[in-house]
Amino acid sequence: MPPAAEQLNAYEQDAALRERAARVLPGGMYGHQSAARLPEGFPQFFARGEGSHIWDVDGNEYIDYMCSYGPIVLGHRHPTVERAVAAQSAEGDCFNAPTERIVELAELMTCLIGHGDWAWFAKNGSDATRFALQLARAHTGRNTALRGERAYHGWGSTWMGGALGMTPSDTDFQLTYTYNDLATVRVAADEAGDDLAAIVVSAVEYDENGKWTAPDQAFVQGVRDVCDATGAVLVLDDVRAGFRLDLGGSWASYGVEPDVSAYCKAIANGYPLAAVVARREFEDAAGQFFATGSYWFSGVAMAASIATITTLQETDGVAQIRRAGTLLREGLDAQAQSHGVAIQQSGPVQVPSLRFLEDDPANLQLPRAMTFTSEAAKRGVYLHPTHNWFLSTAHSDEDIERTLAVTDVAFAQVKDAFGSD
Amino acid sequence: MPPAAEQLNAYEQDAALRERAARVLPGGMYGHQSAARLPEGFPQFFARGEGSHIWDVDGNEYIDYMCSYGPIVLGHRHPTVERAVAAQSAEGDCFNAPTERIVELAELMTCLIGHGDWAWFAKNGSDATRFALQLARAHTGRNTALRGERAYHGWGSTWMGGALGMTPSDTDFQLTYTYNDLATVRVAADEAGDDLAAIVVSAVEYDENGKWTAPDQAFVQGVRDVCDATGAVLVLDDVRAGFRLDLGGSWASYGVEPDVSAYCKAIANGYPLAAVVARREFEDAAGQFFATGSYWFSGVAMAASIATITTLQETDGVAQIRRAGTLLREGLDAQAQSHGVAIQQSGPVQVPSLRFLEDDPANLQLPRAMTFTSEAAKRGVYLHPTHNWFLSTAHSDEDIERTLAVTDVAFAQVKDAFGSD
Repeated sequence: MPPAAEQLNAYEQDAALRERAARVLPGGMYGHQSAARLPEGFPQFFARGEGSHIWDVDGNEYIDYMCSYGPIVLGHRHPTVERAVAAQSAEGDCFNAPTERIVELAELMTCLIGHGDWAWFAKNGSDATRFALQLARAHTGRNTALRGERAYHGWGSTWMGGALGMTPSDTDFQLTYTYNDLATVRVAADEAGDDLAAIVVSAVEYDENGKWTAPDQAFVQGVRDVCDATGAVLVLDDVRAGFRLDLGGSWASYGVEPDVSAYCKAIANGYPLAAVVARREFEDAAGQFFATGSYWFSGVAMAASIATITTLQETDGVAQIRRAGTLLREGLDAQAQSHGVAIQQSGPVQVPSLRFLEDDPANLQLPRAMTFTSEAAKRGVYLHPTHNWFLSTAHSDEDIERTLAVTDVAFAQVKDAFGSD
Repeated sequence: MPPAAEQLNAYEQDAALRERAARVLPGGMYGHQSAARLPEGFPQFFARGEGSHIWDVDGNEYIDYMCSYGPIVLGHRHPTVERAVAAQSAEGDCFNAPTERIVELAELMTCLIGHGDWAWFAKNGSDATRFALQLARAHTGRNTALRGERAYHGWGSTWMGGALGMTPSDTDFQLTYTYNDLATVRVAADEAGDDLAAIVVSAVEYDENGKWTAPDQAFVQGVRDVCDATGAVLVLDDVRAGFRLDLGGSWASYGVEPDVSAYCKAIANGYPLAAVVARREFEDAAGQFFATGSYWFSGVAMAASIATITTLQETDGVAQIRRAGTLLREGLDAQAQSHGVAIQQSGPVQVPSLRFLEDDPANLQLPRAMTFTSEAAKRGVYLHPTHNWFLSTAHSDEDIERTLAVTDVAFAQVKDAFGSD
């Protein structure tokens, strides 16, 4: 179990590995899992996971509130998923053609998701969002896509035009809107005119500092209406929230169906899979261009996905995650208030966000968030200072209770260092 | 074992699955593993693999000469790889940060590959080629890339500009050359002028009809020289041939080192992994942009890769594959001659290509290749009518002997249908 509040983690193996990594990995580590921008107490290397708990290479144990940045939705090494994986692995994974699993999984997803008449599979979330955009352009014969001005839809020139190493052309045919501000969508749609191919919308919107903006009913309905009026394709990027908020799609509760949805992360409890589902009318366009990858049809990740989604269905997994997230949110709110530290929690409780109101994210000054998550990590609770968190069905009441014992200390440290507000 | 030459496969389960797939997958199946363009005798769904043999959903057994279009380099379910996978899986795969495997694998690859001072990992071959290009552009501060006019470097707007669903801007900053024609490289480099960021070259070149062009020493040295003279980055796309021709990189035998190499396919015997290695001077640029994916740091595929590469090293796997490929090529040549059917075999024997000289690939008329591979598939030998084939260390002398018994019948069928040449 994680160390008691007064017993802090040590990180000797991690430090030795970081030294080796510095010689053979760019900058010692790259991408979203680099610990370079995380405070003291966060390891760079993990060794083991079980349920809601993870162990780093020094044997330090953590209650895991990042769930591998989303994929782990049933807890690490969930027995039902592992059994399905073992059964498929015993037969094989990667062949000259797919296994029966691709048909079963497509049948399952198209049953669950209202606008899903067919399904398509790949490996990265960015594969799915990129395919969705290509599909919209192929179907409409138009080029211009609208996207949220702060939205993250994945890596690659399609989505990261303007970044270092991209070309000036990579942002051609893209216009931006402000999330939850329908007027900006309409202005951009007017500017695109009859070249409007797609409006791409994140199911939930977090900016780079973890601040969440709730999609309101008028916005959700409004983008649907703009698409209906213009013939543009409504593409929902459900990579971050998919299968945590609603098994029928994260906008199902709004009564609004997109045309195309992109999935990844929670789809297979950590096994590498991404998917697109879409309405029937887009099938022809999908058949008219070539999109493929070496491992896109492998059976093991699809077997894992079938087991994951079926388990979420059969156990009302979304409600379980919501319960754990609610307990955590209520506990943190009460603690912050009792310590006199001003915080704001936002987002669905399954993918929550916590900000310290006296921090200054616009100027990258986050000393309270850094201190809070550092003190928690050193005591066996893995949160994140800037990114939204992810909960799973494996988070038990005991996990939350133990977590709150640690965060109580972490709040006290924030108060000691920065005073109450 | 595969059926004897006179006993043909049946495909009832496959047909039933194709009917279900037609309702839930675009066009019934998509990408390079769609059987729609393959002749009778090729199943759409596989159930099992072991060594050099695969079984479809009807229980038909085939000797596998596609190796999952490349990934299977040691044969399906190689015991050493499977043991490494089982050990890593028992601890976990996908965490908030990588496992120790990423350091071990990067150390192994940078030891093996001359120009590999550091390594970077992702999931798709197209991730690796796309990252390599972004790296070249970031490092040079220039935009224009040269690529082979028929080269396949993976899916996505970076590489498939001009395809349906791409925008007119996707081919900006790209110029083409003719493989093995250094003069065309020089012309394109002159046209790019001081904006030349990269020359991207396939380690081996096959056109869309499987015709191979041998990279000659003058071409290989020449592109190196152009890069040295202009400051452009030499990017080797070693996705197709990597780890089958030379563990030090597919151009190592030329004595010419690229600056950056992209790997996928054979890197992990079917487990989903791609990689880039590059010289030290490019490390800074790699640290200055954000490129990441949900599953890029997962431990299982990296454990599989370590086991795969180590096994290839310890058993001289490349020589084993070369031996099997040589036996196959010599046998096919002798058979074709004895049947009076004109063929041309080309490419390294580990990734071989066979064409029927009386076929007309330019007009998509390949009746001999279709008949030949169809008759072979129905008798338990999985070849491909248009794509190059892949061999593995699992292909035994007995496999080749049994294969040649089947291809002898297939050549006879070609001769019966189309006459000798």
